[in-house]
Amino acid sequence: MSFNTYGRLFRVTTWGESHGPAIGCVVDGCPPRIALSESDIQPFLDARRPGTSRFVTQRREPDAVRILSGVFEGLTTGTPISLMIENVDQRSRDYSEIRDRYRPGHADYTYDAKYGHRDYRGGGRSSARETANRVAAGAIARRIIDGVTIRGAVISIGEMEIDRANWDWSECANNPFWCPDARAAKAWEGYLDGVRKDGNSVGAVIEVHADGVPAGWGAPVYAKLDSEIAAGLMTINAAKGVEIGAGFAAGRSKGTDMADEMRLGEDGLPAFLANHSGGIQGGISNGNTITARLAIKPTSSMLTPTRSVNARGEEVDVVTKGRHDPCVGIRAVPVAEAMLACALADAMMMHRAQVGV
Amino acid sequence: MSFNTYGRLFRVTTWGESHGPAIGCVVDGCPPRIALSESDIQPFLDARRPGTSRFVTQRREPDAVRILSGVFEGLTTGTPISLMIENVDQRSRDYSEIRDRYRPGHADYTYDAKYGHRDYRGGGRSSARETANRVAAGAIARRIIDGVTIRGAVISIGEMEIDRANWDWSECANNPFWCPDARAAKAWEGYLDGVRKDGNSVGAVIEVHADGVPAGWGAPVYAKLDSEIAAGLMTINAAKGVEIGAGFAAGRSKGTDMADEMRLGEDGLPAFLANHSGGIQGGISNGNTITARLAIKPTSSMLTPTRSVNARGEEVDVVTKGRHDPCVGIRAVPVAEAMLACALADAMMMHRAQVGV
Amino acid sequence: MSFNTYGRLFRVTTWGESHGPAIGCVVDGCPPRIALSESDIQPFLDARRPGTSRFVTQRREPDAVRILSGVFEGLTTGTPISLMIENVDQRSRDYSEIRDRYRPGHADYTYDAKYGHRDYRGGGRSSARETANRVAAGAIARRIIDGVTIRGAVISIGEMEIDRANWDWSECANNPFWCPDARAAKAWEGYLDGVRKDGNSVGAVIEVHADGVPAGWGAPVYAKLDSEIAAGLMTINAAKGVEIGAGFAAGRSKGTDMADEMRLGEDGLPAFLANHSGGIQGGISNGNTITARLAIKPTSSMLTPTRSVNARGEEVDVVTKGRHDPCVGIRAVPVAEAMLACALADAMMMHRAQVGV
Amino acid sequence: MSFNTYGRLFRVTTWGESHGPAIGCVVDGCPPRIALSESDIQPFLDARRPGTSRFVTQRREPDAVRILSGVFEGLTTGTPISLMIENVDQRSRDYSEIRDRYRPGHADYTYDAKYGHRDYRGGGRSSARETANRVAAGAIARRIIDGVTIRGAVISIGEMEIDRANWDWSECANNPFWCPDARAAKAWEGYLDGVRKDGNSVGAVIEVHADGVPAGWGAPVYAKLDSEIAAGLMTINAAKGVEIGAGFAAGRSKGTDMADEMRLGEDGLPAFLANHSGGIQGGISNGNTITARLAIKPTSSMLTPTRSVNARGEEVDVVTKGRHDPCVGIRAVPVAEAMLACALADAMMMHRAQVGV
Repeated sequence: MSFNTYGRLFRVTTWGESHGPAIGCVVDGCPPRIALSESDIQPFLDARRPGTSRFVTQRREPDAVRILSGVFEGLTTGTPISLMIENVDQRSRDYSEIRDRYRPGHADYTYDAKYGHRDYRGGGRSSARETANRVAAGAIARRIIDGVTIRGAVISIGEMEIDRANWDWSECANNPFWCPDARAAKAWEGYLDGVRKDGNSVGAVIEVHADGVPAGWGAPVYAKLDSEIAAGLMTINAAKGVEIGAGFAAGRSKGTDMADEMRLGEDGLPAFLANHSGGIQGGISNGNTITARLAIKPTSSMLTPTRSVNARGEEVDVVTKGRHDPCVGIRAVPVAEAMLACALADAMMMHRAQVGV
Repeated sequence: MSFNTYGRLFRVTTWGESHGPAIGCVVDGCPPRIALSESDIQPFLDARRPGTSRFVTQRREPDAVRILSGVFEGLTTGTPISLMIENVDQRSRDYSEIRDRYRPGHADYTYDAKYGHRDYRGGGRSSARETANRVAAGAIARRIIDGVTIRGAVISIGEMEIDRANWDWSECANNPFWCPDARAAKAWEGYLDGVRKDGNSVGAVIEVHADGVPAGWGAPVYAKLDSEIAAGLMTINAAKGVEIGAGFAAGRSKGTDMADEMRLGEDGLPAFLANHSGGIQGGISNGNTITARLAIKPTSSMLTPTRSVNARGEEVDVVTKGRHDPCVGIRAVPVAEAMLACALADAMMMHRAQVGV
Repeated sequence: MSFNTYGRLFRVTTWGESHGPAIGCVVDGCPPRIALSESDIQPFLDARRPGTSRFVTQRREPDAVRILSGVFEGLTTGTPISLMIENVDQRSRDYSEIRDRYRPGHADYTYDAKYGHRDYRGGGRSSARETANRVAAGAIARRIIDGVTIRGAVISIGEMEIDRANWDWSECANNPFWCPDARAAKAWEGYLDGVRKDGNSVGAVIEVHADGVPAGWGAPVYAKLDSEIAAGLMTINAAKGVEIGAGFAAGRSKGTDMADEMRLGEDGLPAFLANHSGGIQGGISNGNTITARLAIKPTSSMLTPTRSVNARGEEVDVVTKGRHDPCVGIRAVPVAEAMLACALADAMMMHRAQVGV
Repeated sequence: MSFNTYGRLFRVTTWGESHGPAIGCVVDGCPPRIALSESDIQPFLDARRPGTSRFVTQRREPDAVRILSGVFEGLTTGTPISLMIENVDQRSRDYSEIRDRYRPGHADYTYDAKYGHRDYRGGGRSSARETANRVAAGAIARRIIDGVTIRGAVISIGEMEIDRANWDWSECANNPFWCPDARAAKAWEGYLDGVRKDGNSVGAVIEVHADGVPAGWGAPVYAKLDSEIAAGLMTINAAKGVEIGAGFAAGRSKGTDMADEMRLGEDGLPAFLANHSGGIQGGISNGNTITARLAIKPTSSMLTPTRSVNARGEEVDVVTKGRHDPCVGIRAVPVAEAMLACALADAMMMHRAQVGV
């Protein structure tokens, strides 16, 4: 595995910067004879696309994906699938201000420290624009693990949490927050408007589920399914924490409260009476729903001035102007879903390689 | 990377089961001419070793490590370092009871579901015994990143947390919990005695730090340093959550509270006024202390009976008899340190490969 | 490493089919701050380009390369470099004839046997068109190993060999065969015209050299430099054999004839009195010129009818019509050079990772 | 993939030096529920073992293999299989003479140039002793690809070639050369006695076959089956050339002579009228016998003095004393078979991962 590739067998290599001519990815290892066209991918990109509500960045990108290889007569051929998305809305503006000064909390300083040279326009390679590729690749991954349903939701924004008793997946499409709790979603509108007006930003916690994963995917010891999923989610911009199942709450619990006891289900197969494990035990799926959570920090792009230094070794203040997301976590939902899909497609293929069908 | 190998360039491949003749690992990619002998590794193994207090499993293993290759005349040769630890205390006992019945929360069911065949003695490959190898490999990793100091602590056991105001690294050696807060450690004794007497178990949260990492290690996008560390920590037995820096708290915060502002330090280099990022921005180290936390669930091995099924499709009850840890999280501290050391040694070599020195 | 990626740290992932809209590659792991523009790459593509003499295929492709990412203000950024070459001359023609029938010696049957679905237009993914990407990536690799000179030549076409006593690298540019022996090149013209007129094809042997590689690149045991180079050359279309140094002649020799004895050179460093080893001993470069040879089989695309079967299980005859190369080996020279450059850039980075500078 | 690991999914990591306490390997990725014990592996090691005739080194090693993990109740568990072979016959002798002086043609100088430190006893890591591990791993690989028969033979020693018309696989067991031509084997005895008495050494060419490989294994473009096999064979000590099918002869031939024409076989499936391709087309197996050849150079360990330098920069002469093989190529036959087995097991698993069964 390398710097810009995710996966072992279902491998996604992404390229491109925020303000270059295009971004894209190469999906290698996809099984052959899967029906695939741009229209299978585009809806997922549309869901992630900026500019769709006042709560996400107003950058306007059509994000139209093109398949350049690997599909013939409507079916995958087993050879690399090259996807490309043109960067359309690269507002030509004056970057001289951020060219030298490091936005605190951003990757500006660390890229310079590492490479001694960086594309400062819009964050360059560190821009969340890169995640469009993941969403596109995730759409392909979903086709590989056909019986698996992958869904994501925002379960908290800043200190505002959902009430899990109200959880309704279908509500996620009814509000601009991917919020499964209709009542919470209402409250978030005002809250987020306040954040935006203050020139501030706010973090979020995302939860993703995979239903329909059979028992047996994943592998000890360093390819544990939870580790693969955590690694994938942690590569998402601004991610600072990952949980599987009960997560940190498990670290604060007693064993008797965390036992996922088993009985025989109606089909005569083992059934779990709870799912504190998040569908994974010993690094291997147990047939239960796989659940993971992801913490996204508040973006450092704020109208509020922050103290920093510049590349010439001077102390400066940084204020972000122009379009940005008050809560970048919202747009991370389709990305987190995509990473989960990619991790599972990879795990399925790894399992099939070793154990057969 | 494969099932049982961790790392890209500094690669650790482990083997062995709880009740086989031995366990071991092969450390490949180690730089040459590093002074190394068993005595550089053994102290770390001794620190992890079971049987050292009444709060950890009473299995008695000397865990004496042998270097079988890769070191000549006291120096590493650059060729694979083979380490082996014999399994001494494999109590010959009757396993017929757990042979067929799946201990809930353990990997018993999932291993069977995946492989259709498993070494049920003491958990086989899924036993935490495997982690001795990581500690051994981590001792080598520390030698590679000489200027970096890696330390770990338990910051909570069950609902009992430390007071961070009392944090004193030197206290960790003064109690059987790796607890940096002397007062909390006192309280934990009684608490954990209670858990043990109840036949219950309890989770824990571990925090690991790396001081002295220069800015520039790690790489976008899928080899981000936080992702690599998270992946490594998540492979530790019973791990259910990982945080970098502020972690999930960042997901519940405002941007103004999470900005790691910068000023010039006394040495004229950028200095950070806070470390919410945990020393990593955009996947690359920023020169600050790297901080990560790890949630370990309570072990499912309890004297309290739990409902389960067996391999013949019958409903049964499971009770764990004999030695076990009431809080497996305690012994995970040296393991978490080791995984952090391995991740950093790998990142240093990856950085050196691409950018030079 | 995966299906369509070459290299460990300097990683080239290629995509695209002969008759798709474009081909391209992603070069990941390239060091930062290397001056790079399309004009550094284009000359190598022009050298490989078909349609430049009557001895190579008359397909007309401008093969204009575009850099889509990874370069900013004229310097590499250390992030993935995406290169794209549009397919311009995709003659729209009737493929119904080869759609079902397997051209013997081609990949038609094996692709179908493997994938059950293939892009039959012009060989699809198995077309030598893919090698344009390698040449482009190789141009970048050359920049990474600046002090190394890589050159290739055709040393035989069919039964016609050069006289090594006449070897003059500068002659390679003076004939359409990359032939270093001016006299042989003359003879080859008539010979190859005969082959072409007969509707036949002919194989070739290519030799590539790398001068200036310091001692120490490569690594035991499964990343031996000779193995890495052999693997790379063997992925070139129609390759059937690879030699390092004396190659198969070494297998037919005595030890006294193959000893690369050493004396002290004028600089006081070890100097070799011969180079039967081809610059590599024990898998590691010894400072001598690295030499490798590659056998390219005659293409199966011939005007001469050959017996075959079709996908419906019927016996048929196959005749290749239209443009093709009578000796595909000729155009493999820039490709072989490129693979050698990529292997060496990778080996340099691997060495730097482990041993430092 | 790393320095000391071979394979992508069926991964063999070897460790150990000629004169350390032991050598061994970890075989990761092996499918579960394969019947395996030491007695499945030992016969292959016995076949490779030195000291079995006057034509191979007189080092006496029982080479008794132990399985330390990954097998339970006679079946593989899917977890890493650790194999260990103790070094018994490490004659304690005076190495001061070769400690500093570089044996020409050996890896002495290059290891020093790379690492600045090496285990000089018996070649250390560069010793052919490492290949015992491959033979052991290959025995496991054979079990994975059960229907495939892998066989190897020496087809020439120095200038002495077999007559292919006499080829009889069963003859290989009747002479100390793995020679399939009984008449040639007779002649080789005298020839090799002469070489030995002259204090010289001689190269060899080995041919390996795999029968029963179905069409479809291998993958474009950088995991072509021929490239994988070539890479594996080229990692064998003293290998200098590899051919697939017709090999270099194809480079000297016309297309009409190299066409592997197809007709329908008696079973209604495509059958090939020849096998110049060596069973592989476009990097994918075609169902025909896979054939490869390997050139092994004569060992540089000779009684004949050769000129060299030492580590102190002085010119010296080197004479090898004591036991050694006059033709190391002979003992490479089981090793070449093993590498072919490993490559095929890996290819089968890669194919199964992507395409299913």
